[in-house]
Amino acid sequence: MTSRRPEPVVHTREHAEVEFSRIVAFSDGVFAIAITLLVLALEVPAGSDLIDALRDRGEEFFAYFLSFAVVGRFWVSHHGLFAAIGRFDTPLLAINLAYLAFIALIPFTSEILGEYSDESAGVALYAANLTLVSACSFAIIRYAARQRLMRVEESDYRIRRVTASVAVVTAVFAVSIPIAFVSPLLATISWASLFVVGDRFTDRIAGPTA
Amino acid sequence: MTSRRPEPVVHTREHAEVEFSRIVAFSDGVFAIAITLLVLALEVPAGSDLIDALRDRGEEFFAYFLSFAVVGRFWVSHHGLFAAIGRFDTPLLAINLAYLAFIALIPFTSEILGEYSDESAGVALYAANLTLVSACSFAIIRYAARQRLMRVEESDYRIRRVTASVAVVTAVFAVSIPIAFVSPLLATISWASLFVVGDRFTDRIAGPTA
Amino acid sequence: MTSRRPEPVVHTREHAEVEFSRIVAFSDGVFAIAITLLVLALEVPAGSDLIDALRDRGEEFFAYFLSFAVVGRFWVSHHGLFAAIGRFDTPLLAINLAYLAFIALIPFTSEILGEYSDESAGVALYAANLTLVSACSFAIIRYAARQRLMRVEESDYRIRRVTASVAVVTAVFAVSIPIAFVSPLLATISWASLFVVGDRFTDRIAGPTA
Amino acid sequence: MTSRRPEPVVHTREHAEVEFSRIVAFSDGVFAIAITLLVLALEVPAGSDLIDALRDRGEEFFAYFLSFAVVGRFWVSHHGLFAAIGRFDTPLLAINLAYLAFIALIPFTSEILGEYSDESAGVALYAANLTLVSACSFAIIRYAARQRLMRVEESDYRIRRVTASVAVVTAVFAVSIPIAFVSPLLATISWASLFVVGDRFTDRIAGPTA
Repeated sequence: MTSRRPEPVVHTREHAEVEFSRIVAFSDGVFAIAITLLVLALEVPAGSDLIDALRDRGEEFFAYFLSFAVVGRFWVSHHGLFAAIGRFDTPLLAINLAYLAFIALIPFTSEILGEYSDESAGVALYAANLTLVSACSFAIIRYAARQRLMRVEESDYRIRRVTASVAVVTAVFAVSIPIAFVSPLLATISWASLFVVGDRFTDRIAGPTA
Repeated sequence: MTSRRPEPVVHTREHAEVEFSRIVAFSDGVFAIAITLLVLALEVPAGSDLIDALRDRGEEFFAYFLSFAVVGRFWVSHHGLFAAIGRFDTPLLAINLAYLAFIALIPFTSEILGEYSDESAGVALYAANLTLVSACSFAIIRYAARQRLMRVEESDYRIRRVTASVAVVTAVFAVSIPIAFVSPLLATISWASLFVVGDRFTDRIAGPTA
Repeated sequence: MTSRRPEPVVHTREHAEVEFSRIVAFSDGVFAIAITLLVLALEVPAGSDLIDALRDRGEEFFAYFLSFAVVGRFWVSHHGLFAAIGRFDTPLLAINLAYLAFIALIPFTSEILGEYSDESAGVALYAANLTLVSACSFAIIRYAARQRLMRVEESDYRIRRVTASVAVVTAVFAVSIPIAFVSPLLATISWASLFVVGDRFTDRIAGPTA
Repeated sequence: MTSRRPEPVVHTREHAEVEFSRIVAFSDGVFAIAITLLVLALEVPAGSDLIDALRDRGEEFFAYFLSFAVVGRFWVSHHGLFAAIGRFDTPLLAINLAYLAFIALIPFTSEILGEYSDESAGVALYAANLTLVSACSFAIIRYAARQRLMRVEESDYRIRRVTASVAVVTAVFAVSIPIAFVSPLLATISWASLFVVGDRFTDRIAGPTA
């Protein structure tokens, strides 16, 4: 309808006809399944006293609810990302698949977190997983912005804002990997801080609304 | 189109663009996966006589069908809730995520119920899970009503009716937690009563149709 | 639009607003999850020789592909059913939930079939599961026809035809339960016959078109 | 609306009313679930040193990411296939179900690949699984082309191109089965080559754009 500058890659590649809505629906499916599979990390205690057995598993429950919040938060931000993106090409599809591979890995690293929450390596592995998810988000938005795959109506401010937000989240997760080797607890607290101050902080970074 | 009183929170927050229908679809996905994962609690007996082995597992089958009915019923009432809600904001999204975290936990507590159905702690844990789901429903409707997120066409009668219904269900589940320590069987029966008398009872509480 | 005889139950019940399409989508979700969970019955052999280990598990693979075909076939016939039904009421919702509970049970009974395929009880349990799914189909169509929940354009011929088809399938599965105690193999063959002669046979039962 | 040559099979079979979009949605569901179940192959190490334990499991992680890419790639090509197909009949539905049965099997053969990656039989089994998926793709496109189920606007060039592409992929996977018995590593590399040269190669085979 409107005149656009030609972007041969987007339209000539075989996958161009994979409709946008289906890619988002597929991603949503992976999110919903991964978040529901988290429960499989909780093992039904076999043995004598149920209450005692459950008390010892406080960390497993903590890991379950933390990961539920984390995956839920990533789902929301994935939607924010794809609400800003208007078109797809094959590399973007591939980056999104890498993103989903790390989302689908969370039930595994979350189970490790639940069982090794007082061990640095367990916490660091979980932090590394979240870092990789977040780094993929960053790659998606950078690639989409550079290839002009964003919706026309997206303002530069909004793109700058989302990019800043994703960069901050990635940095916090990345920094928490070495922190985990100093204090597993401190690493965990640093993730929680994202839920509390995240949005406000990135608003300030992105600068005034245009 | 129509004039509304301004609600800045709903429209300025980053997540406002997560479309309503996707949140409901995501919730439906979690419901469908959680209800289908219930089957994983049923262990294939390893050993000699299959018929004997299955006979001993009557409680596992009971827990499976009970939880299938419970999750199915929650799914229906979740739809009722979101049919009445017209808009979303971030806190509502967070409460809904907490709701889903407790729904996705049911395959775990249901498996415990199947293996510890004659032990008070197992039944109480299951009751606690259902109480928390129901309490989240209550929080959703109260929050949505207070923040005026309900559809305009929703009558006060209907809101009062759904609120009453959810309050009764929450109360029955909450009361069944201490009951489980007196008699696990009695607690189980009290849940079943919800399926039979639930709707009629809440109709009477909500008062006459406006 | 068109004049219909009043059906108060359908419209006054709380669940009437659970839209038709969502119930079908939820059912489809349970089908897709249950069919994909079948793979969990296949255990990765631990031990020395992989080829030998896999050879011993021929029955597990047979059960996997049989159940994939069975659940797939049920999915198709469930669609046929709900393409003929125009409206929902609460009892129909409950029967459909019972139907789905037996579909979601197939990964369990299929795993038992794979491990106990030469034992009568294992085959009979599987046959009983399929009988119950099919009996729920029969209950759905009979209830919908009696309560006039079918689409107006559905001819009596088509309703008769689908009813006959479902009745035949239910009967074959039911008869295969006692057959399993005589010969597990014969019971398995009787299910396979449904795939081959099923449609042609029920066409003859339903009588001439129009 | 438009005049078409009569195709009685497509329209008279009971399953014709299973709408096209639902079959694609069901297939998408199976893809999303299968890809997310891959994580269940990763076992949480029980024991002393987490870092050592994870180091030993490099092959499991390799199998996870490889299979994620493989299933993701199959999902994209399945979409390409069904974007070209306009109508369904019962045999096509059956071939698609066989296709999905082999997709849903990948979490199992992928787990075997992760645990037996240096054993020829494990790699060959995985290659056989991918060959069967790809062979089903080939069967779908050949059947659809012969039965004139393709969209009218599909050019012969495009059909020839997709057929060639699928034939090449099937051949590479098939050839990698015997290769696995010579060198498991070489077989793995041959799959990877598909990701790199696949599209370019099939473009040349299909010949000039019409």
